[in-house]
Amino acid sequence: MSKIISGFSKLSKEEKIDWLAENYFNSQPEIIQTIKQYWNVDEKLQQLHDDFIENTISNFYMPYGIAPNFLINGREYVVPMVVEESSVVAAASKVAKYWSTRGGFKTEVISTTKIGQVHFIYAGAKADLEDYFQKNITELHAATASITKNMEKRGGGILDIQLVDKTEKLADYYQLHVTFETKDSMGANFINSCLEAIAKKFQNDEIEIIMSILSNYVPECLVRAEVSCPIEKLGGENPEKFAYKFEQAVKIAEIEPYRAVTHNKGIMNGIDAVVLATGNDFRAIESGAHAYAARNGEYTSLTHCEVKDGIFKFWIEIPLALGTVGGLTALHPMAKLSLDMMQKPSARTLMQIIAAAGLAQNFAALRALTTKGIQHGHMKMHLMNILNQHHATPTEKDEVIAYFENRTVSHSAVVEKLNSLRKPTVNWVDYSNEEEVRNKLQLLTNDSKPSFGNMNAQQMIEHLSEITKIPNGNWKIDVFVDEEKAARRKPFLKTDNEIQIGFKASFLSENPVPLQFSSIHEAIEDLIKQIRLFKEVFEKNPSRIVTHPFFGDLDYNLWKKFQVKHFTHHFKQFGLA
Amino acid sequence: MSKIISGFSKLSKEEKIDWLAENYFNSQPEIIQTIKQYWNVDEKLQQLHDDFIENTISNFYMPYGIAPNFLINGREYVVPMVVEESSVVAAASKVAKYWSTRGGFKTEVISTTKIGQVHFIYAGAKADLEDYFQKNITELHAATASITKNMEKRGGGILDIQLVDKTEKLADYYQLHVTFETKDSMGANFINSCLEAIAKKFQNDEIEIIMSILSNYVPECLVRAEVSCPIEKLGGENPEKFAYKFEQAVKIAEIEPYRAVTHNKGIMNGIDAVVLATGNDFRAIESGAHAYAARNGEYTSLTHCEVKDGIFKFWIEIPLALGTVGGLTALHPMAKLSLDMMQKPSARTLMQIIAAAGLAQNFAALRALTTKGIQHGHMKMHLMNILNQHHATPTEKDEVIAYFENRTVSHSAVVEKLNSLRKPTVNWVDYSNEEEVRNKLQLLTNDSKPSFGNMNAQQMIEHLSEITKIPNGNWKIDVFVDEEKAARRKPFLKTDNEIQIGFKASFLSENPVPLQFSSIHEAIEDLIKQIRLFKEVFEKNPSRIVTHPFFGDLDYNLWKKFQVKHFTHHFKQFGLA
Repeated sequence: MSKIISGFSKLSKEEKIDWLAENYFNSQPEIIQTIKQYWNVDEKLQQLHDDFIENTISNFYMPYGIAPNFLINGREYVVPMVVEESSVVAAASKVAKYWSTRGGFKTEVISTTKIGQVHFIYAGAKADLEDYFQKNITELHAATASITKNMEKRGGGILDIQLVDKTEKLADYYQLHVTFETKDSMGANFINSCLEAIAKKFQNDEIEIIMSILSNYVPECLVRAEVSCPIEKLGGENPEKFAYKFEQAVKIAEIEPYRAVTHNKGIMNGIDAVVLATGNDFRAIESGAHAYAARNGEYTSLTHCEVKDGIFKFWIEIPLALGTVGGLTALHPMAKLSLDMMQKPSARTLMQIIAAAGLAQNFAALRALTTKGIQHGHMKMHLMNILNQHHATPTEKDEVIAYFENRTVSHSAVVEKLNSLRKPTVNWVDYSNEEEVRNKLQLLTNDSKPSFGNMNAQQMIEHLSEITKIPNGNWKIDVFVDEEKAARRKPFLKTDNEIQIGFKASFLSENPVPLQFSSIHEAIEDLIKQIRLFKEVFEKNPSRIVTHPFFGDLDYNLWKKFQVKHFTHHFKQFGLA
Repeated sequence: MSKIISGFSKLSKEEKIDWLAENYFNSQPEIIQTIKQYWNVDEKLQQLHDDFIENTISNFYMPYGIAPNFLINGREYVVPMVVEESSVVAAASKVAKYWSTRGGFKTEVISTTKIGQVHFIYAGAKADLEDYFQKNITELHAATASITKNMEKRGGGILDIQLVDKTEKLADYYQLHVTFETKDSMGANFINSCLEAIAKKFQNDEIEIIMSILSNYVPECLVRAEVSCPIEKLGGENPEKFAYKFEQAVKIAEIEPYRAVTHNKGIMNGIDAVVLATGNDFRAIESGAHAYAARNGEYTSLTHCEVKDGIFKFWIEIPLALGTVGGLTALHPMAKLSLDMMQKPSARTLMQIIAAAGLAQNFAALRALTTKGIQHGHMKMHLMNILNQHHATPTEKDEVIAYFENRTVSHSAVVEKLNSLRKPTVNWVDYSNEEEVRNKLQLLTNDSKPSFGNMNAQQMIEHLSEITKIPNGNWKIDVFVDEEKAARRKPFLKTDNEIQIGFKASFLSENPVPLQFSSIHEAIEDLIKQIRLFKEVFEKNPSRIVTHPFFGDLDYNLWKKFQVKHFTHHFKQFGLA
């Protein structure tokens, strides 16, 4: 049955969810539960968020973290970060703290203009077009008067309109290239409205407007952030070596695009986190930044490093077209909180804070990469994610984290470790502890009932003695043990696993053998005797190997492991372990 | 007081919030309320989200919407989208529906390999290095055996290790360039762990490892999506013209970087929305896509268009390194829901769905840009955001939306309109409607009390007559009206605003003037007479101008406006309007 639907956008939120559950989830009620568990309990607040975009059914939680200790141009900031990737906030916080004692971040806005273009096709004589443009330029400005009025009050507006000939690249293609200043607003709507008004005024029978739109390429909306200090102040064991490797790492990103892309990706981890937290548009920022990185024909690093005259200097230059008014900045309560947290910055100030966050992120990444490698920190968080995925308790988390302190984290290794913790704890019986063995077995009477099997208490004790006689050399069983099978079985002895309830080795007779002793007490004393002997024979000849009728040839070590498992198995049978 | 803090990460969530409120919000309790209103009521669920990153204090709601009607390679999909920008989901839904009746999206994965590099410095002879590399290549593979074991079971692993000489670009700089296949996982941790193991094995006294890390530049992890149909099937008024302008718009993006950046930004609106919804890393996707767009030395479009032999064809080629296992994909309940919604796609399938979402977004943008302009749709959503910001009721929303159907949306215009709606409704009195005037005024008696001022009913009626005598030419007042003041006052007459309660023009005497008529009835008839005369004198001489003692020189039109306001003011005084 076709799932193509008409008028979906007109359904209520509940109806949309029902349609979704019916068509793509076989109407599983859990799905609806998952979707609704993320709705805010405050209906009005939820409505606000539902209206931000179309066809909303729920909220996607992005973690909201804060990075304190940013010292920027002498002023302290706590920086809000919205990001789903672990380590980003931790790295920002650590690096901010680090530089706060080394002068902090020095930042400056280099320029703040933005670009928009009217793209059109014109097949006539170029001179006529230029003439037409020159004659109408005042009109083009005037056409935007009602739109620019408020912006001009705030000190912004249209700075320049240029006619650009692009016919060499595409037949008959020209542009009006317009430069804007939009102050504290990102200005997308403002710029697009101006451009459409200009285009409407400019078009005529010979000029066909293809489109009018702002550019997210904003090389003239540029900010710079820097950290620097004398090399010896960098700290660590070998600051010279650290500075050298760090500088090399930046130089590599400057000349090797494969590296530069990831280098810049790391910068954007920090940048986007603040961009998101302030309700700005990260796609705009991303496209502008990466295009800027590619501006000279080869994709390169956005940060640079210089180690010279004993000074380590590290800086970023990045285009950031941001808004601190308009858009979501005031509408989304958490975006508003973010701006309030940074003391209601102007767009210029926000550019500088975000550039510092990007530089901090890159510093953290390069420091990790050039010293202990990036996986060390990453793996810690990866581990935590796996633990959460498997609903580990706080105690389990502590144990697993300690276990992997010096081990390689992999999904399967973590799950294995976690599962081992979750097995019911086994109270292994120390067969060699005479006192423990005697005290426990003395609790048994002729009336003691086993929890499985059909031996009574004394039969069980005598069975332990009998089996111990095998390694002692006092019970020769003529059982052929297939080598291959034995090789497969033996590793079990090295595990933490118990002998399974109900297991019975084939060499044992189906029914309990007749009793040899007259009381449980005598049987216990015989067992103790056999245990002493067991120790003696192996200590006398440490290389002694005796064939176990099920596990094959075993040395002292494996026999001991067998004894622990075997004793535990039967002690449990009578509730003693 | 310094806000630099040590050990912040070790504070509890509540303590972190308290510190934040104290240091950056003057301990305002509303701040804590804002932060906590976004906590999930299910503590365990909130804990899960808190653990995704560090220093979390709350959740940032990103709207979660769904776009139905995606037909991809003959299969129907509903696509989950997480994005804060309005219009993105609506555009995706509309375009998906549109193409669902024109064959849908055809997609294919071109390749899926990923890259990682060990960057190192080596100052010795190149031949020796090559020799060392060749002799150790098997060892390098072997060093990753424990890491690659599971990946190899799933059909992935290390495909190739190359030694690359980069010394021309940077002294002594070489790489091990490693190619990976990571199947359904994004593979970042896997690749980085392999590289670090390789680097550890490879390094020696002469080889200094600078860093080992995956690349987010993945030109060989490439997917293609396409739509096509005969031109005449494109629909609309003029499909040929549509196809022509659309093709031109794509060609412009191919040759003009300022346009290409925004063109691709629009594509990423669609791509990132699904990337986020599935718990993938959008910074990785962004960096890879934009670097790919710049691969040939000039930043260019990721989509292409061909109109040939009567067929319209539009396609995208984009690198997308995605995971459908590992990372947040299973950990974040809404990310898991997203994948389930798309029927648990493999990474290859997800690449294709996301490429289709990107292509759809670009189609929508170009269609809007080349036809009615992008602001039309944007402004609708912009309008809705402003309305929400000002807590508009559903009725107010309907009225304002209707009002702006053919008007330019600006923040100030919307607020003004909204405020005007919120003013108490004025029941303007039609002074020229004799019947209405007479019927209403007849309700008054000598006992009627005014709600303001000190006139009684008959005095008020006679006052209306007196004032009407001014334009009629029967009451000459010798009042000098300052031209400048009059110019400032006159625009008021054109507004929807009322004369304010308690307002008294300076030319009127402080106390009510003596009554002229013997009854309310007579006073009413005099007023009706003056109203008739008012009409007559102006209709006889339409260019007649009479000076109003407060508003200055007024023509018939403005006198009428004044009369409406003045009558309304006094009718309201006695509860008649």
